[in-house]
Amino acid sequence: MARRSKEGCCSVLQMNEDNARFGLLATLILIYLLCGAAIFSAIEHPSELQAQKLWKMRLRNFTQTFNVSPTELMAFLRQYEEANVAGIRVDALRPRWDFPGAFYFVGTVVSTIGFGMTTPATISGRIFLIFYGLIGCAATILFFNLFLERIITMLAYILRWVHERQLRRTGVRMSSEHRRGSAGDVDSLEGWKPSVYYVMLILGVAALLIACCASAMYSSMEDWSYFDSFYFCFVAFSTIGFGDLVSSQKEHYQNQNAYRFGNYLFIIMGVCCIYSLFNVISIVIKQILNWILAKIDCRCCRRWQKKHLRHHRNAVRPAPNKTRQKNASIDTVCDSETDGRRMSGEMISVKDFLASNKVSLAIMQKQLSETANGARQTYIHHNGFSGGIGALAIMNNRLAETSVDR
Amino acid sequence: MARRSKEGCCSVLQMNEDNARFGLLATLILIYLLCGAAIFSAIEHPSELQAQKLWKMRLRNFTQTFNVSPTELMAFLRQYEEANVAGIRVDALRPRWDFPGAFYFVGTVVSTIGFGMTTPATISGRIFLIFYGLIGCAATILFFNLFLERIITMLAYILRWVHERQLRRTGVRMSSEHRRGSAGDVDSLEGWKPSVYYVMLILGVAALLIACCASAMYSSMEDWSYFDSFYFCFVAFSTIGFGDLVSSQKEHYQNQNAYRFGNYLFIIMGVCCIYSLFNVISIVIKQILNWILAKIDCRCCRRWQKKHLRHHRNAVRPAPNKTRQKNASIDTVCDSETDGRRMSGEMISVKDFLASNKVSLAIMQKQLSETANGARQTYIHHNGFSGGIGALAIMNNRLAETSVDR
Repeated sequence: MARRSKEGCCSVLQMNEDNARFGLLATLILIYLLCGAAIFSAIEHPSELQAQKLWKMRLRNFTQTFNVSPTELMAFLRQYEEANVAGIRVDALRPRWDFPGAFYFVGTVVSTIGFGMTTPATISGRIFLIFYGLIGCAATILFFNLFLERIITMLAYILRWVHERQLRRTGVRMSSEHRRGSAGDVDSLEGWKPSVYYVMLILGVAALLIACCASAMYSSMEDWSYFDSFYFCFVAFSTIGFGDLVSSQKEHYQNQNAYRFGNYLFIIMGVCCIYSLFNVISIVIKQILNWILAKIDCRCCRRWQKKHLRHHRNAVRPAPNKTRQKNASIDTVCDSETDGRRMSGEMISVKDFLASNKVSLAIMQKQLSETANGARQTYIHHNGFSGGIGALAIMNNRLAETSVDR
Repeated sequence: MARRSKEGCCSVLQMNEDNARFGLLATLILIYLLCGAAIFSAIEHPSELQAQKLWKMRLRNFTQTFNVSPTELMAFLRQYEEANVAGIRVDALRPRWDFPGAFYFVGTVVSTIGFGMTTPATISGRIFLIFYGLIGCAATILFFNLFLERIITMLAYILRWVHERQLRRTGVRMSSEHRRGSAGDVDSLEGWKPSVYYVMLILGVAALLIACCASAMYSSMEDWSYFDSFYFCFVAFSTIGFGDLVSSQKEHYQNQNAYRFGNYLFIIMGVCCIYSLFNVISIVIKQILNWILAKIDCRCCRRWQKKHLRHHRNAVRPAPNKTRQKNASIDTVCDSETDGRRMSGEMISVKDFLASNKVSLAIMQKQLSETANGARQTYIHHNGFSGGIGALAIMNNRLAETSVDR
C-alpha cells in the first residue's frame, strides 16, 4: 500500500512535470495579470473619470454655443467615427493607401505590430489580409528566429573573445608566479559558454540604446515629448502596437524620405532586438519555474519519506526494476550530496540560484534536463508515449536547425 | 590560383550559408511586402478616396445646417479625438479602467495583441507599462512555446496511434496472405515520425474551427457580420490586433459574464493555435529556403566545375586535408547519386520536394542538417568560431528543454 502510494506520488510528480510547469506558468501569468489589472486600474481610473467629465462639459458647451441638438451632434460624431476608421482626422494625415502608406501597413501586419492607423475597409481587402498575414507572419517569425540565432552567435563570439583575453592576462600573471597556470586555463576555455545573464544584459543595453536613439528622432520629428517617444518605441518594438501614438503619420515632414527610412530601420532593429531580449528573459523565467518545481518536488518527497521510510525499511517486499529506477530519479532531485552525478539538487538550491549570474546557464540547464530525463525514461516506457518524442523531434530538428547547427 | 578560387568559392558559399539564408529570407520578405503593398493599395485606395469625399460632404452639410464655422468645428473634433484616446465614444462603451477593463487591457499587452481600445494616458501608467510588458511578454512567449510543445506532443501521439492502427490493419491483411508482413511493419514503426504537413493541416483545421465557433459567438453578440467576426478573429489570434473591431466593448450584453469568459477563452485558444500554426508554417518556409540555397549552390558549383575541372585534374598539387574535406562536403550537396550517404541532393530535388507531403520532414531535415554540418565543421575550425557554438548551445539547451526532452 505504502509502496503504491509512493509510486503514485512520485510518478504523478514526474509524469506530469511538463504539465506541472505549463500549469504553474499559466497560474503565475494569471496572477501577474490580476495584479497588473489592479495596479493599472488604480493608476488610470482617476484620469479616465476626469476625461469623461471634461468631454461632457465640452459637449454641453458646444451644443449650447451653436444651438445644435445633442442627438444631431451625436449623429455627426458617429459619422466622424466612421471617417476615423478610414484614416481621416481633422489635421490631414498622410494618405493611407498610396504605395508608401500601404507598405507601412503591410509592415505592421507581418510584424504583428498592428498599430491600426490603417486597416482594410473593403471585404476583398480583408479576405486578402487573412491569407497575406498567414504567410507573412510565419515568414517573419522565421526571420526573427534566424536573427535571434545570428545575434546569439555573435554575442557568444564576442564574449568568448573577452573571456579569452581575460584568461590570457591572468595566465601571464599566473605563469610569472608558477608555470602550470596557463595550461589549465586553456583547458578551461574548451567548454566555456557565456552566461545567459551577460547575454540578457547586452541585449537589454542594445535595446535601450536603439530605443533612446529612436526616441531622439521621434521627439524631434513628431513633436512628442522624449518620454512619449520612448513609450512609443517600447509599444512598437514589442509588437504590442496600441496605435495611440504612431510614427510617420503627418502629411509632411522635413526630410520626409530620410525620416521614413529611419523609421523603418529603427522599427526593424528594435523589434528584432526586443524579440531576442524577450526570448532570453523567457529562459530565465523557465529557470525560475524549474527551481520552483524542484522545490515542490523535494518538499513532497521529504514529507513522504518522513511518513513512510521506517515502514519501508522494515517491509520485506519485492522491489521491481521499474520502481527502483523511479526512486533513483526522484533521489536525483531530492538528495543533493549523495553521489557525484547528483549536481542538480545542489544547483537548484536558493543560494546557488541567486549566485548563479556567474554560473553558466548551459551547465544549469544540462543538469536540470538530465534530471528530468532520468525521471522521464520510465514514464515513456510506462504509457507508450514514445510516439510523442517523434513529433517533438520534428520541432527539435527545426529548432536544432534554426538554432544549433548553424 | 585555381585551387584558391575554388576554395574561395566553396568556402564563401558554405561559410556564409547561414547569412545567405538570412539574407535570402529578408529579400523574399521585402519582395513580399512590396507586392502586398501594391495589391492592398490597389484594393483599398478607391475606398479611401470615397470615404474622404463622403466626409467632406458631411462636414460641409453640418457647418451649413448649424451655421458653425469650420475652424470651430475642427477645434471641437480635435477635442473629440482627445476624448477618443481616453476611450470615450458617442455610444457609451464599457468602462476602460475598472478591474475587468484593466484585466482585458493587460491581456492584450502580454499577448502583444495590443488592440489599443484602452491605452495608459498618465505618465506613471506608461512607465509601469514598459516594465510590466517586459516581463509579461517574455512570460507569454514562454507560455506559447510550452503550449506549442504540448500540442506537438499530443498531435504526434494521435498521429502515431492512427499510423499504428493502419499498419496493424494492413498487417492483418498481409499476414493472411503471407506471414512476414507484420514483423516488418512493427520494425518500420520504431523510427516513425509524423509529417509536418499533417501537423500543419491539423493545426490549420483546429484554428479554422476555433475561428468559426468564435465568429458565430461574436456575430451574434456584437452585431457584426459573420465575415467581419472572422476577420476580427484572425487579426486578434495572430496578435496583430488592429483595433478597428474589438470584442466585448459595449456597455451591456446579454449574459455579460459568460460572454466575457467565452471571449477570453476563444482568444487564448486562438492565439495559442495560430502561434503554433505560424511556427509550423515557418518550418516549411525554411525548407523552401534551404531548397533554393541548395539549387543556387549546385548551379554555382557546376559552373565552377565546368570551368576548372580539367585544369584541376591535370595539375599536380598538394591536396591538404582541409581542402579535401571541403570538397567532399560540397559534393554531398551537388552530386546526388554517387554514394549511399548522398541523400540530401536527391531529397532537395524539385520532384521530391513537391511529392514530399508523404516524406517525413524529420528525415528531410536531418539530411539537410547533416549536409550543412559536414560543410560546417571545417569552417568552425577554420576561423575559431567554435565559441559561437557554445552560445548556440545555450539556445539549444533552452529549445531542447522546451521542445525535445519533455
